[in-house]
Amino acid sequence: MLKDFVKAERPEDDIIAQEVKQAREKLAVYQTQIKEAKLPVMVIFEGWGAAGKGSVIGRVIRSIDPRFFVVKTMAEPTEEELRYPFLYRYMKEIPEAGKFTFFDDFWMEEVVNQKMRGEIDDAAYARRVKSINTTERSLTDNGYLVMKFFFQISRKRQKKRLRALQDDKNTRWRVSESDLHENEHYNEYLEVYDKYLEDTNRSAAPWYIIDAQDKKWAELQVLRFLNQGIDTALKNHALAAPILQNTFRLNRTPLLSEVTLADKTISDDEYKKELDRLQAKLRDLHNELYRKKIPVIIAYEGWDAAGKGGNIKRITAALDPRGYQVLPIASPEPHEKARHFLWRFWTRLPKDGHIAIFDRTWYGRVMVERLEGFCSENDWQRAYNEMNEFEKELAEWGAVVIKFWVQIDNQTQLERFTDRQNTPEKQWKITDEDWRNREKWDQYEEAVNEMLQKTNTTFAPWYILESNDKKYARIKALRILVDSLKKACKDKK
Amino acid sequence: MLKDFVKAERPEDDIIAQEVKQAREKLAVYQTQIKEAKLPVMVIFEGWGAAGKGSVIGRVIRSIDPRFFVVKTMAEPTEEELRYPFLYRYMKEIPEAGKFTFFDDFWMEEVVNQKMRGEIDDAAYARRVKSINTTERSLTDNGYLVMKFFFQISRKRQKKRLRALQDDKNTRWRVSESDLHENEHYNEYLEVYDKYLEDTNRSAAPWYIIDAQDKKWAELQVLRFLNQGIDTALKNHALAAPILQNTFRLNRTPLLSEVTLADKTISDDEYKKELDRLQAKLRDLHNELYRKKIPVIIAYEGWDAAGKGGNIKRITAALDPRGYQVLPIASPEPHEKARHFLWRFWTRLPKDGHIAIFDRTWYGRVMVERLEGFCSENDWQRAYNEMNEFEKELAEWGAVVIKFWVQIDNQTQLERFTDRQNTPEKQWKITDEDWRNREKWDQYEEAVNEMLQKTNTTFAPWYILESNDKKYARIKALRILVDSLKKACKDKK
Repeated sequence: MLKDFVKAERPEDDIIAQEVKQAREKLAVYQTQIKEAKLPVMVIFEGWGAAGKGSVIGRVIRSIDPRFFVVKTMAEPTEEELRYPFLYRYMKEIPEAGKFTFFDDFWMEEVVNQKMRGEIDDAAYARRVKSINTTERSLTDNGYLVMKFFFQISRKRQKKRLRALQDDKNTRWRVSESDLHENEHYNEYLEVYDKYLEDTNRSAAPWYIIDAQDKKWAELQVLRFLNQGIDTALKNHALAAPILQNTFRLNRTPLLSEVTLADKTISDDEYKKELDRLQAKLRDLHNELYRKKIPVIIAYEGWDAAGKGGNIKRITAALDPRGYQVLPIASPEPHEKARHFLWRFWTRLPKDGHIAIFDRTWYGRVMVERLEGFCSENDWQRAYNEMNEFEKELAEWGAVVIKFWVQIDNQTQLERFTDRQNTPEKQWKITDEDWRNREKWDQYEEAVNEMLQKTNTTFAPWYILESNDKKYARIKALRILVDSLKKACKDKK
Repeated sequence: MLKDFVKAERPEDDIIAQEVKQAREKLAVYQTQIKEAKLPVMVIFEGWGAAGKGSVIGRVIRSIDPRFFVVKTMAEPTEEELRYPFLYRYMKEIPEAGKFTFFDDFWMEEVVNQKMRGEIDDAAYARRVKSINTTERSLTDNGYLVMKFFFQISRKRQKKRLRALQDDKNTRWRVSESDLHENEHYNEYLEVYDKYLEDTNRSAAPWYIIDAQDKKWAELQVLRFLNQGIDTALKNHALAAPILQNTFRLNRTPLLSEVTLADKTISDDEYKKELDRLQAKLRDLHNELYRKKIPVIIAYEGWDAAGKGGNIKRITAALDPRGYQVLPIASPEPHEKARHFLWRFWTRLPKDGHIAIFDRTWYGRVMVERLEGFCSENDWQRAYNEMNEFEKELAEWGAVVIKFWVQIDNQTQLERFTDRQNTPEKQWKITDEDWRNREKWDQYEEAVNEMLQKTNTTFAPWYILESNDKKYARIKALRILVDSLKKACKDKK
């Protein structure tokens, strides 16, 4: 599409000046409407080196109060960042509701550079494109406005600008090796840019190509599209996004009512023996997966008082504390609630070689948030697929993803609640909210069943831990974990 | 103190086992008391490589619920981290109230390594030690419990452990070059460790040397000291820290009542001319300080409606948006309130070569927090010195620190408030709180006067911007900024 790009006709200077002024005033009015509508706005600038992205960003933000925007320059990933999923450092920076983030380069730059340098092959490139498309869709589905601008200049103009920058000792640092490389191999880059734009041009987040030969004119084009985009988004904001069909292969899980508990017990002797044996194995595996840089994500969900905490403890007891983290998930804080519901999980991901154990997870979306009405029906309906996609990203990054549902029956919960209530050092573990949730047992059971059915994927399976006998559940969790890690270590040389 | 360290007598195995069990139970009880008392606990483990810090951390945390602790391993600073002040990456990780953070290595490790490798000279080492002592004191003064453990083992024992790790392919990665170097030059390291421990052994955060020849015994020593420390901290928690005398040279500033406003005006012609001239200079300087990697911190305080926003805009209009950030400071969010009051500013510092403009600042501590009773009198009285120390750290890092007080008179504020109220597109800028604050004008004036007198240091001076005529104030700010940056660029080759 870049190669076929037909420039809009450039107006006369005085027309441009006049229109820019009007467009800036319009944007200034939009900023407060955006705040009120709690619309998060991502404005992504990509394009040729020295095409003037920075200078146009500088002009556009003049109309906006600093309380409502952030400018974020995405440089090449650092060594540290390369130890996280590709999307990680981008997802960290998404704006909160009611605010703009202007990105000077985004994921396009990284993907195109990697492709040009031969660091990723065609299959990896295709995966990146899929990740990007999926994420942009999930962002827009969750109410984000995503505006993408590509700054287009000719080879000649680029060369001229690079020279000018190089001639001044205070701007020389702005010209990177890769800028020069880009100019030298302009046509090859053009091919790759063109293909990328085609590959990621979707209706929810289309590309706008900006004729950037002239900066004032470039600013006007950006302002026009941006104001249009905001106008549409404000009008559409109340519209629900379509609920996508789940496109992942699912394994059948039993309904909770089909899970038998009374027969799932273990003797004390057997427990002690197995615990020692499995923890010793896990200890060795932790070293091995650290060496092989395999990330591990363990998700715990289950009834209150099902024994999640004690179960997690039997796992962590075998782990080196420098290589894992337990992440207890409570209700989101204001700055978390203001972003995509997966943001607080993206930002808590482990580095490769590390283990993250989530005590409660992103599945809160389809349990407590669904039942308490903290999000719309459309939101939680869409979330099954969004969570599968999230876990797919993790799996493709190379992570082992294991999800445990810790199951007890209603009567057992009552006994444990009562025990907590009556034991002084356990009282902090039981709250009025726990009792209130208990009253909704049947609704929760229905939600859990739906969740298990819809998210039991091959790459991130659910395992049910029968936990009327907590010791039985602990041994079962350790076994599953040891088996999964053994397999992952064996698969990765 | 390390060389003179006299080991405590190691009890028999069964006594150790019994005492460890009791100490763990005690710690488990403390965890909820810590939560209730909102006590933040930093537990710092330093010591020889392979001394068993990780394994003891792993044992100690078994008694604590994952909701109440984090383990943080501090590796060598990355390239990116080296672009921030030395303290930055440590301050980012301090625990929130009611929780533990266990640090596997902390600033000691970095400083000692830099010294051994000759990367810092004696003067720089002395500055590091001062930064650390100052910060530890500020943390404990603000209610943090800081426990510091040094793990001591003999050269022979270290060698044996390193060999054992190297012999297993899954643990070989644990042995670093610097571990081997340490063992080879054991006595030189011993000297440096010893000196560092002496230099940083203060009553508010003393060192505990742990005989780590044996892991079980090491755990018991840690648990004993930790429980003792917590016990004391819980008892002392209500006690105010002493208010330190200000130890910085201060320049006299006028009282606000001595500032004349009526005569501080500028003609429109003069304004336009000066604005263009100064912005052009600032534009060049921004490039130069980027190249010279000089960080700049500009702090704006002033009366509501004094014209801070417009003043900031005239500065940012001349800056490359990739090289600065405006940071509007509102009231702290829960996760910010739960930490040292400077934490949310530490974590927002710019990289070297970048400019951060704070729209309201850490001085809220001695204005709104003082007047509204959001902190104790002791807290805000102590804060003058703490903020001077904070800015001293920034100045020694090489930052230009400029503080503006934007001054108007009471009548002018009233006119601007009324105008905002009556102009639809300005209404979002005026709230009931603004009117309420206005009623406390005299109290604020008193607080501001005290603040200006007590924090007008040579390295981070206050400048008063007379802003009844906003244009006058803008030109004055630009002049001060241009002069300061020019000087900084000249001083740094």
